[in-house]
Formats: sequence, structure tokens, C-alpha cells
Amino acid sequence: MANYLESLDQTFAALGDPTRRAILARLEREGGVTVSQLAQPFPIKLPTVMKHLDVLDAAGLIVRSKTGRTVTVRLSPEPMQAAMDWLRRYEHFWTHSLDRLTAYAENQEAQRRPKP
Amino acid sequence: MANYLESLDQTFAALGDPTRRAILARLEREGGVTVSQLAQPFPIKLPTVMKHLDVLDAAGLIVRSKTGRTVTVRLSPEPMQAAMDWLRRYEHFWTHSLDRLTAYAENQEAQRRPKP
Repeated sequence: MANYLESLDQTFAALGDPTRRAILARLEREGGVTVSQLAQPFPIKLPTVMKHLDVLDAAGLIVRSKTGRTVTVRLSPEPMQAAMDWLRRYEHFWTHSLDRLTAYAENQEAQRRPKP
Repeated sequence: MANYLESLDQTFAALGDPTRRAILARLEREGGVTVSQLAQPFPIKLPTVMKHLDVLDAAGLIVRSKTGRTVTVRLSPEPMQAAMDWLRRYEHFWTHSLDRLTAYAENQEAQRRPKP
């Protein structure tokens, strides 16, 4: 339980940065990407990218593998499932608001129909 | 777009703390809760609880209202919807793994059945 809570801390904290989310989004689209390819689109230096990768790695959101001098990064999205499960408890709030909005719209529509 | 990205930063960062998640979970169960009620189950001091409430407030996850000397805290879960939408892009990873697991189990089951 402690580990689960700790890993939720790390997952949410890791996701709270736009560069790290952009890295994850790219890995989702492209699969395995080398560190230097990963650093290219960002206006930040390679050591900064490496620090972001360390945070993502510690949260279990990526895996790194080395072949010769090339480090390839891959997505490891499992921790996100726990984050989604945690958020799902709150889903009924916006689902209910949407239901109320639909009911209101349908009611307005019914009132506008000519009476028989 | 910038605001959306910034608010995702704040939402995920706010969720990356077990006390803050416990506060949100309690507000989900109980609705409006006063600050002093909220502080009771935690082995931390009121000023620390107040700091957590400031973080949650800045992320738009709670609203505070004052009646006389009593401050009541309520959940404002809308920012979580954007967080879930962001995570949903990755859902196919674990859904597909589950599909593969189901297919494997069904295949094993079929092989175990006596041949006609």
C-alpha cells in the first residue's frame, strides 16, 4: 500500500511538467527513440533532457536500454493506469454535470415543440 | 493552449502528494468540510494543511467559502477531467495487454478441450 501511494506521488509529480509530458507523448507515437533524437525538438540542453528522463525513469514511466553508445528510450505506461484509476473515482462529477446539461437541453427542446 | 498546459502542470503537481489526495478523497465522500474538520485526521499542523489547501486552490481543485469565522472547503473536480483526457491517450497500452492476456487464456483453454 505504501509503495502504491509512493508510486502515485512519483507518477503525478513526473506528469506535472510539459517537457516530460511531451517526451511521453512522443514515445507513445514513435515507440523507441534515442536520447539525442528525443532532445532535438526542445530548446533545452541535453543534460536537462537527461534530468527529465531520470524523473520519468524513477517513476517507472520509461525504460532505457543501451546498445554501444546509443541509449534508446521506450514508454512504460503501466504507472499511468494507477493514476487513471485514482482519477476515475471523480469521473461521476463531470458525467453527472453532462447528464444534467443533456436533460436541460432535452427539456428546452420538448417545450419548444408545438403542443398537439 | 498555454493556459491548458499550465493548468495540467498544476493539476498533476497538486495530485502528487498523499495528503492532498486524501483531502480530495474526503471532499468527494463528504461534500463541504470545514478547514478544522479537514485537519483533524492528519498528524500535521493546521498551517501545513492550509498550505496544501493553497496548492489545491491554485490548481482549481477546491473552492473555499467563508461564513463568519468558518471556512468551508468544497471539491472542484473539473481540472481532473483534463488530466484524465491526457492520460486516456495511453489507455490502449494496458487495454491491449489485457486483450492479449485474454486471447492467450482462451487459446490455452481451447487447446485443453478434448478433440472431437
